[in-house]
Amino acid sequence: MKWYLVAGLLTLLTSSQGILTTLSQTNGGYRYDYATIPFLAEVFKLLVSSFLLWRECWGSSPPRMTTEWKSVRLYPIPSIIYLIHNNVQFATLTYVDTSTYQIMGNLKIVTTAILFRLFLRRKLSNLQWMAIFLLSVGTTTSQVKGCGEASCDSHFSSPIQGYLLGILSACLSALAGVYTEFLMKRNNDSLYWQNIQLYTFGAIFNMGRLLLDDFRVGFERGPWWQRLFDGYSFTTWMVVLNLGSTGLLVSWLMKYADNIVKVYSTSMAMLLTMVLSVYLFNFKPTVQLFLGIVICMMSLQMYFAPAHMLVDLPVTSNAAAPQTLSEVAVQRSPKS
Amino acid sequence: MKWYLVAGLLTLLTSSQGILTTLSQTNGGYRYDYATIPFLAEVFKLLVSSFLLWRECWGSSPPRMTTEWKSVRLYPIPSIIYLIHNNVQFATLTYVDTSTYQIMGNLKIVTTAILFRLFLRRKLSNLQWMAIFLLSVGTTTSQVKGCGEASCDSHFSSPIQGYLLGILSACLSALAGVYTEFLMKRNNDSLYWQNIQLYTFGAIFNMGRLLLDDFRVGFERGPWWQRLFDGYSFTTWMVVLNLGSTGLLVSWLMKYADNIVKVYSTSMAMLLTMVLSVYLFNFKPTVQLFLGIVICMMSLQMYFAPAHMLVDLPVTSNAAAPQTLSEVAVQRSPKS
Repeated sequence: MKWYLVAGLLTLLTSSQGILTTLSQTNGGYRYDYATIPFLAEVFKLLVSSFLLWRECWGSSPPRMTTEWKSVRLYPIPSIIYLIHNNVQFATLTYVDTSTYQIMGNLKIVTTAILFRLFLRRKLSNLQWMAIFLLSVGTTTSQVKGCGEASCDSHFSSPIQGYLLGILSACLSALAGVYTEFLMKRNNDSLYWQNIQLYTFGAIFNMGRLLLDDFRVGFERGPWWQRLFDGYSFTTWMVVLNLGSTGLLVSWLMKYADNIVKVYSTSMAMLLTMVLSVYLFNFKPTVQLFLGIVICMMSLQMYFAPAHMLVDLPVTSNAAAPQTLSEVAVQRSPKS
Repeated sequence: MKWYLVAGLLTLLTSSQGILTTLSQTNGGYRYDYATIPFLAEVFKLLVSSFLLWRECWGSSPPRMTTEWKSVRLYPIPSIIYLIHNNVQFATLTYVDTSTYQIMGNLKIVTTAILFRLFLRRKLSNLQWMAIFLLSVGTTTSQVKGCGEASCDSHFSSPIQGYLLGILSACLSALAGVYTEFLMKRNNDSLYWQNIQLYTFGAIFNMGRLLLDDFRVGFERGPWWQRLFDGYSFTTWMVVLNLGSTGLLVSWLMKYADNIVKVYSTSMAMLLTMVLSVYLFNFKPTVQLFLGIVICMMSLQMYFAPAHMLVDLPVTSNAAAPQTLSEVAVQRSPKS
């Protein structure tokens, strides 16, 4: 499978996620316990990966599986990072308004690229760095509050703690992504075996969260497993399946593509959700949404287009040069 | 003189123009006749160019001057295009609000590049085309009305005629620029001799405009030459000198650099004016101004940086490739 097809599918599913979640609400609230969604999504991913691994075991070449504790113990770490990240996010929101929070979320595009460079030692050209900055500028542009919008929170007037926590949040999010990529690529283990380890710990951590919620309210609603599917509708199940599927696609991208591809997919998904919301939920389209889309499209081209397509040569140059330049482009193309 | 120094100076003077014009107002209005400013600026440019040509005549190599009517008759054409352009601008403003009008003004960045390609047959790489689109997106972003701004005209709700006239206006502005570049570069005539022809017709057309204004009001305020300096202050004279100087710099750029350099200079000047207004006139800085500046800076890099600086090579590539790539970059660099 080509990485750009997977990335395209991830964009479609991620943008559906926001829309399905909105559609699953009843009168602006959730009838079901929202914390059950990520837990069931982990279970779904675990079942799919187990089935695929089982099928792989019957294939011509048996899958590679490292079962040593030294390797397995690395798999709960992404879950731990996400756990810390969720708490930092929660703390951030006590200092900043939602609109500043949303705008600060675009920082993770840049932090992902920085950690990608530092920890995975992947080189990016200056043009690719510019493309990544532009992507975050583009997504931010699309989110700028328009003229005459109802709520008009003032940007950049929160206490300094809010911004520091926002930066920490962006770093943790990037760290989780970069660490997962490291984990998936560090050996030639079967993707499905790696997934099983990742999602087992994911399911355990999510279960822990549900249990903690129960303890907080003193089990007054009964234990979580007795009311797991309470208030579930067809749309709620679609939300679970959709979230599970995006998770599987992200794992695939972490192994066979990289974090930057994932960042582009999810950024494009954010813009697609806004465009679809114009049609589905009668959102008023803004000039800044249009500008943001144009900027992100340019960024996409700048990052992924081979060099010879971007800096083509004048007709007067000698015949040998273009060939060398396209050779160069092939050499530096990180994906195929 | 290096083209980028001239371009930088043009940026500074163009941004001063807006600020000086605001400072020359008394209680929000003009005490002097604003139409006298471009006329006096033409006279100033004519005097400076005449002096420089006279000095050149005494130099070691006498200046080249084509004095045939076949050549001289080409010089009123920019003035004629600007005359039509001014009227189209006026007509546009009867259909669209000032905010939409300002945003449509960014179209001339793209139309200039298109006419530059079509009429002057100058090749641009895909990256340079993207840079030009980004420049117009960046200047537009900086102008997007912020949340909670006083006047809140709705964008894109004007009659279609307004948009068509806006496009025509952008094309005429581009045509004037591209035609002037063609005029300045078509032969090796002295820049000062070319300027004298250009500004003589410019002064005549501006004089005609002043006379026409007098006819319109039936000479009730007397002929224009009797009240030419009425209400002039020191700042008004600075406005005249500043406008004249920017004109001389533009002529220089048209001969020794090109229209795209001029477009970048004036776009950067627009942003600089907005930044200076924050300090001088207590304008509220917006997120979109900041984003616009970042986008335009990226665009500048993308357009002017040599290819080898943008698409550098991974350390694993063979030693010959980078040399070839920088050779290529030198070949395609249009200016030096």
